[in-house]
Amino acid sequence: MSLDNAKSAKSARTAFTESSLLRTLAAILLCFLFIYLVHVWTPGGLDLVGWKPEGNIKQPTLWEDLVQGKRDDDLAKIRSEWLLELSFIEKASLLPSIAGEFIESLLDPETLSITSMDVPDLLALTTSGSISSEVVVTAFCKRAAFAHQLNKSLLEINFESAIVQAKKLDAYFKREGKALGPLHGLPMTLKDQYHVKGMNTTMGYVGWIDTFEGSKDSPLKGATESEIVRELESLGAIIIGKTTCVQSLWYGETNNNILGYNFNPVNQNLSSGGSSGGGSVSMPASYNGIFSIKPSANRLSFKNVANSSKGQAHIPTVPGLLGRSISSIRLLFEALLSTEPWLRDPEVIPLPWRENQAQNYTKRKLSFGVYAHDGIVRPHPPIERALNIVIDAVQAQGHGAVDWNPPNHTEAEILHDKIVNADGNYDVPQQLALSEEPFIPELIPYFPNGKPQKPLNAIEVEQFVQRLHAFRNDYNEYWLSTKALSGTDRPVDALIMPITPTAAVIPGRSFYYTYTSIINTLDYVAIVIPVTFADRAIDKLDVDYLPVSEVDRRNWNAYDADMYHGAPACVQIVGQRLQEEKLLVIAQRVVDAIEEYKYKQERLSGKETGLKVQNTDING
Amino acid sequence: MSLDNAKSAKSARTAFTESSLLRTLAAILLCFLFIYLVHVWTPGGLDLVGWKPEGNIKQPTLWEDLVQGKRDDDLAKIRSEWLLELSFIEKASLLPSIAGEFIESLLDPETLSITSMDVPDLLALTTSGSISSEVVVTAFCKRAAFAHQLNKSLLEINFESAIVQAKKLDAYFKREGKALGPLHGLPMTLKDQYHVKGMNTTMGYVGWIDTFEGSKDSPLKGATESEIVRELESLGAIIIGKTTCVQSLWYGETNNNILGYNFNPVNQNLSSGGSSGGGSVSMPASYNGIFSIKPSANRLSFKNVANSSKGQAHIPTVPGLLGRSISSIRLLFEALLSTEPWLRDPEVIPLPWRENQAQNYTKRKLSFGVYAHDGIVRPHPPIERALNIVIDAVQAQGHGAVDWNPPNHTEAEILHDKIVNADGNYDVPQQLALSEEPFIPELIPYFPNGKPQKPLNAIEVEQFVQRLHAFRNDYNEYWLSTKALSGTDRPVDALIMPITPTAAVIPGRSFYYTYTSIINTLDYVAIVIPVTFADRAIDKLDVDYLPVSEVDRRNWNAYDADMYHGAPACVQIVGQRLQEEKLLVIAQRVVDAIEEYKYKQERLSGKETGLKVQNTDING
Repeated sequence: MSLDNAKSAKSARTAFTESSLLRTLAAILLCFLFIYLVHVWTPGGLDLVGWKPEGNIKQPTLWEDLVQGKRDDDLAKIRSEWLLELSFIEKASLLPSIAGEFIESLLDPETLSITSMDVPDLLALTTSGSISSEVVVTAFCKRAAFAHQLNKSLLEINFESAIVQAKKLDAYFKREGKALGPLHGLPMTLKDQYHVKGMNTTMGYVGWIDTFEGSKDSPLKGATESEIVRELESLGAIIIGKTTCVQSLWYGETNNNILGYNFNPVNQNLSSGGSSGGGSVSMPASYNGIFSIKPSANRLSFKNVANSSKGQAHIPTVPGLLGRSISSIRLLFEALLSTEPWLRDPEVIPLPWRENQAQNYTKRKLSFGVYAHDGIVRPHPPIERALNIVIDAVQAQGHGAVDWNPPNHTEAEILHDKIVNADGNYDVPQQLALSEEPFIPELIPYFPNGKPQKPLNAIEVEQFVQRLHAFRNDYNEYWLSTKALSGTDRPVDALIMPITPTAAVIPGRSFYYTYTSIINTLDYVAIVIPVTFADRAIDKLDVDYLPVSEVDRRNWNAYDADMYHGAPACVQIVGQRLQEEKLLVIAQRVVDAIEEYKYKQERLSGKETGLKVQNTDING
Repeated sequence: MSLDNAKSAKSARTAFTESSLLRTLAAILLCFLFIYLVHVWTPGGLDLVGWKPEGNIKQPTLWEDLVQGKRDDDLAKIRSEWLLELSFIEKASLLPSIAGEFIESLLDPETLSITSMDVPDLLALTTSGSISSEVVVTAFCKRAAFAHQLNKSLLEINFESAIVQAKKLDAYFKREGKALGPLHGLPMTLKDQYHVKGMNTTMGYVGWIDTFEGSKDSPLKGATESEIVRELESLGAIIIGKTTCVQSLWYGETNNNILGYNFNPVNQNLSSGGSSGGGSVSMPASYNGIFSIKPSANRLSFKNVANSSKGQAHIPTVPGLLGRSISSIRLLFEALLSTEPWLRDPEVIPLPWRENQAQNYTKRKLSFGVYAHDGIVRPHPPIERALNIVIDAVQAQGHGAVDWNPPNHTEAEILHDKIVNADGNYDVPQQLALSEEPFIPELIPYFPNGKPQKPLNAIEVEQFVQRLHAFRNDYNEYWLSTKALSGTDRPVDALIMPITPTAAVIPGRSFYYTYTSIINTLDYVAIVIPVTFADRAIDKLDVDYLPVSEVDRRNWNAYDADMYHGAPACVQIVGQRLQEEKLLVIAQRVVDAIEEYKYKQERLSGKETGLKVQNTDING
């Protein structure tokens, strides 16, 4: 979507709403992309943001009927007592933020209390039988119902089946006297890329509605379950719905012809992120101010998951976890590994949770590589400030922070682009053709005349893969070399980096993904930590900055202190390949350091700053 | 090489010699392919088996000069007191076998004693200072010198530098009072694909002589060391030479324009195997009657190793270990992991040796899937007999053996062929062009008009990779399903399978590789175990067998009881991905079972059968 498109889209919307779905779900989400959709649908008509037929009103055709049918089905899956007035939804769309206090004001005290709990606390109650799964799941469905109406986030709604499943869990507990598993009664959502029995998977394609990956008569339709979904259910988790995603998964903002463009609930001027560029876990976590982990490839199962460019295995898609605390995502990560996924998915590496590696980092002095600017695109002021807070915080704990001067990330950018797009994205036009739906505007530049790019041949791919391995080697050698600087007699333990150069992004102004794609290119581990929020009073643009490149200039000029005000500003903590245990421990220590630092700053300044790290239920 | 070519090649040779180099080296060899070359070089002239200019004698050109220079250099690297008479070499070439007793008869008692030891016993002496490294290395160099003259096996000879290195190790021991590492003073050879400082790497290409992978002026020339070589040296191993391989690595028999075609020292009618079809570790181990392990990809480092089709990472090349006992290869495997290769090679999975997984299988009752015939190509009588010995032996120990009915291996054959050849092998003609050397005859059919095949495009590759993942999943699901049949309440622990349908192979009659390529296609672990030897009195062809296909017919007709007499007959024990520890333990138990079974059979029959499993120094 171009800047102009984004503007006209915004002005065209008739119902501008929000869903803080992630926060509303006790907020463990399993997503390659998780995103909040801003809904622009008015009952009785179609008005898709970012796509409008030219001239006279077009007669509905098959794809539009499919969309209408799916929307009607979705609406019918929300209990009537949970439905909001349209006028209320419209008013909410005009608010700066609809997250936190706004959505909380809609909830009864019990629902608010349950849905505000952190996952470990909630599971302590469900697994001990202190609260019924039915109560928990119903509370989250209720909040999710409000959230979805305010911001169409769910491509699949599964509330009633989820409540039935919760009752079964309650019966199980009563019968057996114990929980089914460590995730007993945990409500979850999955990106609409994971297959769940009895549900649709659209991946943002109209042509996939009521099919199996586009095939109408496939016996797999509604019968397939992704391996990781089976694991979650075997652990006691309950899938209450599936979240929206960008058509094809190939863009850093979310838009599709089923639910429309998705704005950011924390700051409704902005995008809630997207799936492209290798940042499909970290980017939406960052834009929405929550925690996430992107593990290395094949640590968790990606078996039987729908995807674009299936079979591109050099820089593969990985499943990531999003939640409201490090302890939440760690709990989920450990639980998934406890099922020994490598027994059922031969691509998964047989690495159980390594407690000894976690323990190794609970107390020792740490050192961090600080990569505040990759020399290609400078982060905006809120991100620079967030980085400085983290650096000050970890240094205040006695940890080291050294400058990071790795091999040139431009090479990583080239390799990522060439390898993940090697097939020319031939499958995207094929999937669109199923329903004759149009490209979303954001994708049009990548498909001149609606055609895919010419694919590379195997020789070209192999040559890029050789460069990929050389780059990974060079990067590793650089990392090892930091032993001389770290002050710990070890190479640096982790990196502190921006996720994108922006605190969320103004629609149409997604210019640069390499701070996240580098992580996938290297198959490293990344954990997103919310730090602060953009503040128009502090985060002023350095107008004297001379951009080093055209993309740097475009990104720098795209900053607008007023529009960004209130947007979450996050950083990522990055570890080497398959170091998830170590990184989860380090990330928690960084979070603790930030909290202590802020507490001291507040005491020094004698006032509340309003910065809350762990509680992401905020107002911008 | 066609059958005719092979015959004329054989009749053309003027010096037909042998090297039981592997056995001579205390026999730990690190090879993707390890092979014994039959040398057909007569000093002062070129007479390359399998390649002869048509018509009048061609004038030497650049590539022939390069070969002559390399041969002269090699000869000059052998001490004069270790040189054999040409007439003796010629006489040896007429023997049925030149392994075992023949080569041993050339050695003084000390050299024989040292070079006959198993690796753990030898290292017990070197690491305790009971024997000097210089004495050990000199003994092996001496035996290797004889072996090489009898059967040109070494593309690089490093005897004198190795002895210098051994002296340094002795000085280290004297100074520090301890061994450098667990492989202190262990002589080793590497396939001429691994880079060692100060040595050439040719990979069977004339154009690579005195270059770095074909580049004459590269600063990497002679300066590069493969990661695993560094690890071996850091552990105390000493590289005494590099072994030959087939031009390009793409064939199941060994031939190149530097040293010529390689016959089998155990039975000089036969090939010693080769590098194609995913069996580049198991096939030569099997053909020569020794032990090997092919680990899963990325368990050991393959960083900075020369290769064909570099960057083809879906069914990648892996380093394998060959030796004279399971304990030898286990010791080496453990030692390599103890260096934590994942710290230096980011492709290596951080899996240390898992002693608990090994311990799990030291005592319990086992069950085996038996795959005596894949329904595509039936193994020859010696292999069927070897399989039956192993089945009887394990059943005599109380272990289970159930029929194996997996997903169709034809699919694996297609996937392996398409994926490993996706690039059309474009690099092979490029490397040949460097020196203008000709294709070896075996490769000519694969390069019509000397050109590579058309490469697949990225879409086609991705589609094959999807099928690959589906096949791996199906295979795993089948494996898991055997829990119902195994009698152990677990899926079968390992498979017992042929390695090729042949006990070694008659030159030009390599028709079928899928018993080994399936292992690479699945990324499984394979351990080769020598079982017995082809015996013309027992292993008669079933003339009533009706082949199921043309390739089955060709293979069946290629059996010749007289020609095969004395050839090693081996089986492979196969485990799932990354189960090296478990499989090494199980393989040792199979070896023990075979020994006990044979001992009992001999007592029953009241005679020595002449079958020796652990001692591979045999006469056919």
